[in-house]
This record gives sequence, C-alpha cells and structure tokens, in this order.
Amino acid sequence: MNFLEKLRTASQKNKSLLCIGLDPDPRLMPSEVGIFEFNKAIIDATSDLVCAYKPNFAFYEALGSEGLDALRRTVIHIPDNIPVIGDAKRGDIGNTSKAYAKAIFADFNFDATTVNPYLGFDSIEPFIQYHDKGIFILCRTSNAGAVDFQALRCVEHDCPLFEIVALKAREWNVHGNIGLVVGATYPEELRLIRQNHPDIPLLIPGVGAQGGDLALTVRYGVDARGEKAIINSSRQIIYASREKDFAEAARRAASELREQINTCLPTKG
Amino acid sequence: MNFLEKLRTASQKNKSLLCIGLDPDPRLMPSEVGIFEFNKAIIDATSDLVCAYKPNFAFYEALGSEGLDALRRTVIHIPDNIPVIGDAKRGDIGNTSKAYAKAIFADFNFDATTVNPYLGFDSIEPFIQYHDKGIFILCRTSNAGAVDFQALRCVEHDCPLFEIVALKAREWNVHGNIGLVVGATYPEELRLIRQNHPDIPLLIPGVGAQGGDLALTVRYGVDARGEKAIINSSRQIIYASREKDFAEAARRAASELREQINTCLPTKG
Repeated sequence: MNFLEKLRTASQKNKSLLCIGLDPDPRLMPSEVGIFEFNKAIIDATSDLVCAYKPNFAFYEALGSEGLDALRRTVIHIPDNIPVIGDAKRGDIGNTSKAYAKAIFADFNFDATTVNPYLGFDSIEPFIQYHDKGIFILCRTSNAGAVDFQALRCVEHDCPLFEIVALKAREWNVHGNIGLVVGATYPEELRLIRQNHPDIPLLIPGVGAQGGDLALTVRYGVDARGEKAIINSSRQIIYASREKDFAEAARRAASELREQINTCLPTKG
Repeated sequence: MNFLEKLRTASQKNKSLLCIGLDPDPRLMPSEVGIFEFNKAIIDATSDLVCAYKPNFAFYEALGSEGLDALRRTVIHIPDNIPVIGDAKRGDIGNTSKAYAKAIFADFNFDATTVNPYLGFDSIEPFIQYHDKGIFILCRTSNAGAVDFQALRCVEHDCPLFEIVALKAREWNVHGNIGLVVGATYPEELRLIRQNHPDIPLLIPGVGAQGGDLALTVRYGVDARGEKAIINSSRQIIYASREKDFAEAARRAASELREQINTCLPTKG
C-alpha cells in the first residue's frame, strides 16, 4: 500500500484529518519520562484518533544519539496502519539528497517526508524515486519569516514564489506521490493553493500553538471530498499536561481537536 | 576565537583556500576501511594543506547511528586550529531551528554550518545567535536544479531570487558571522555576488567532480585581499584512490589543488 492509500485508509477508519506532531522537548515534558516512553504513551493513547504522526527530526537530533535512537523506536512503535511523516525538510544536490532519501525512507522507514524546494528538481528527485512514499514540498510555511522569500512576486507567471513552487510540484508529480506544506497561519494563501491545485495533498501545520484559524484551515484546506488535508498539531496536544496524566490529557486534546475539525468539514451531499 | 578568525588563521598558516568535503560513501571507499578510520586517515594526511573541513550530514545519516557516531568522532579528531563546517542545510520554523542549531553547534561542536533560506529570517536567527559560529546561507547552489527557483526574477529589486537572498543576508549580518554558499558551476553569478558583496565570506562547492572552472572560481570568488573564499572539493580528493594508498593519494590531490588555487590568486601589490 502506498503512502496516500495508507493515509486515506487511516483517515477513514479513525474519521480524522488530525496529525499529531511528535516533537519531544525535555523542558516541556513531564520530568522523569524518557523520550521514547513519552512518545509511546502518547501514541498508545491517540492512535485511534489520528490520520498520521509527524516527528520532527530537529527535536531528536538536539538530544544526540539517544534522541535518534528514540526516533527509531518511535517509528517502529507506531501501528502499521498509521502513516508516519518524517519532518526533515531536507534538500541538497542530487548525489547528497540520495543519501538523505536513503536515511529517511530505507533506514528510518518513514512513509513520507518534507523537503525544501530551494535547490530545485534534482534535489527532490531522489525522494520522488521512492514511488510508495509521500513527499511534501515546503510551499508556504507557517512562520512569520515565510514572507521574506516565499511571498516575493516573480516576473515569470506574475505570481508569488510559493505559487511557482506549487506549479513545479504539479509538473514533477508524475508518480502521484507529491504533496505541499502550507501553513494554517496564512488562510488566504491556503485558499489560493487549494483553488489552483484541487487534488494535491496538503500537510498543514500551524493550528494550535502557532495560532492558525481552525475553521478557515479546514474549509480552505480540504479537497472537494473533504479529504487530502493533514492538519498537524504538536504542542497543543502532546503538552496538554506536564503531569503524570499527560497521555490521557493528550488523548482528550486530540479527541477535541479531531471533533472540531470534523465539525468544520463541509457536509457531504 | 570566532569562526572567521579561526578560518583566517588556518588559511594563512596553511597558505590555503582549500576545504575538503568529508563525504564518506562506502561504494567509493576502499573496502574494509571504516568511516571514522577513513576520515581520520584523510585528515591526518591533509591537515597542513587546508583552511577547513566540511562533512555533509547526509552521508553519515545514510549510515544510521554508526554513521553519526563516526561524524562525532571525526569532528573531535580534526585539529583544533582547523575550522569544521557542518554541511546540514537545515531550516525550519524558529522553535525547531533552535533545536537544529543546538544539535549542530552545542552537541556536535561544529564551527560553522550551512542553512537553507526558504523559510526566512526566523528560521536562520537561532543559528545567527551563536555569534562565534559561521552561518553560510544557501544562495546560488552548484547543482543543475538551482535554476528552478534561485534564478527566478523577482519584481522587488528587479533581480533574481538568489541576489535577494544575498541582500537579506547582508541585512541580517549584524554579528558579522554570516556567509553565502555560491556554486563554482555558475561563474557569472559568482562574479556578480562578489561584486555586490565585496566583504562576505563565500563557501564555494562545485569544483572537481561537479565541473566548476577553477581559475574563474578563484578569480571571482576571493575578496580584494585574495581571501574570504572557501573552495570545497570532496570526491576529487577523498576518492583519488580506492586502494590502500587512499590517504597518500588524497594528500597529493589536495596539495595539487591547493597549488592550482594559489596560482590563480591575484598577485598582491
């Protein structure tokens, strides 16, 4: 089963567009709980509520080899029917991207990853070559600095850079395994991207701690069937409590957010 | 001593603008030589010939925890007077980039790193906050795909995207620790960047296996004093031989390339 099929199956089974970002930060976690132990408890408490999990490499790399070991164990622990997106935002010259793709897909065994488009096609191609995996290209990110370059108006096509990235992504999508990252914090841009690219899967971070409007995110993010949007929340869920009850608190927060998302979905005809 | 002082000192002592890329690839390495053992032999044979070393994270990540362990040991083994650039090309939202910066600067103890500009200022700021470290922002990369986005003409400033990245880099350079990555394979763009930014340090990959013209690279890359260019070569040097003599062969290749670079330098008045 390829990434998109796995995503659709999990999403339908769990009635969920919610993706939980597994970004462990020892300063925010309950004390005396190890990284893997923390993730495991969150996963066990929420795996019937999500369409995917998304660990971000940075938080594991910051903890050295112990962190990366916890990441490996986390990917293995996530139930087989739930896709796992490795948020790595890699991108390098072809020869080097090939090594990154191997690390993420063959070694860590992620179902999908995020990539940075700045180096162009040959930096992304080694990832696309894994036809069964999902590749989410950064398009319009959720942070304030996104305006610095992504919003620049380009003479070609007379549109902002992020829209050219989306156009290129469509052109490169010959294996049907490409998606885009579009932040919830820019609803107007999200609307535009979905309008111009009705079929492309969107990975949408930025609701919750980052402040993206949930109703607009859902309305603008999903496709005509109310699908193909992966709405990510990290801190709001995994740090719902710093006490012993953190896993139950995460379950409550995840369950609420899933319901809120579903309430915002257009009713099917 | 901060990164730039360390770089200048090493460069002057070794009369060298050459940086060796430590990118171990088991398919190209002599058989039965471990990753760290390979790097150690190359370093021991060349540390009086270079201004810096640059391991690229991808090649270590592709080898799993064993690879990352070899990377750690490699950074420790490089003599203290030679700066080490961690080629990671990271970039994420602020909160996350902070974790990457910690991993690269505090945990691995690299003297400098490469970052991707696509996410804008707040993705780079956590790196810049390490005032003693060097931050090389990808500007015009050496690969063919660089034209896909980096060369797009932007309405603002009526110039290509990579030049806007360079302008922003200058604006952000309040601690004097920012440089740019400009590939040797685009000499005209290199000339333009150096002309518009006479003082900024340039990390220049793309000579050797990638085919960049060495004479033009040196002439266009250095500043008015014949400095501030770090000319990287990986495969041409570390894979000069696949036999037992790989370290001696690497020394010969490094020595030759250093001389060729020095021959191309403008004679000082």
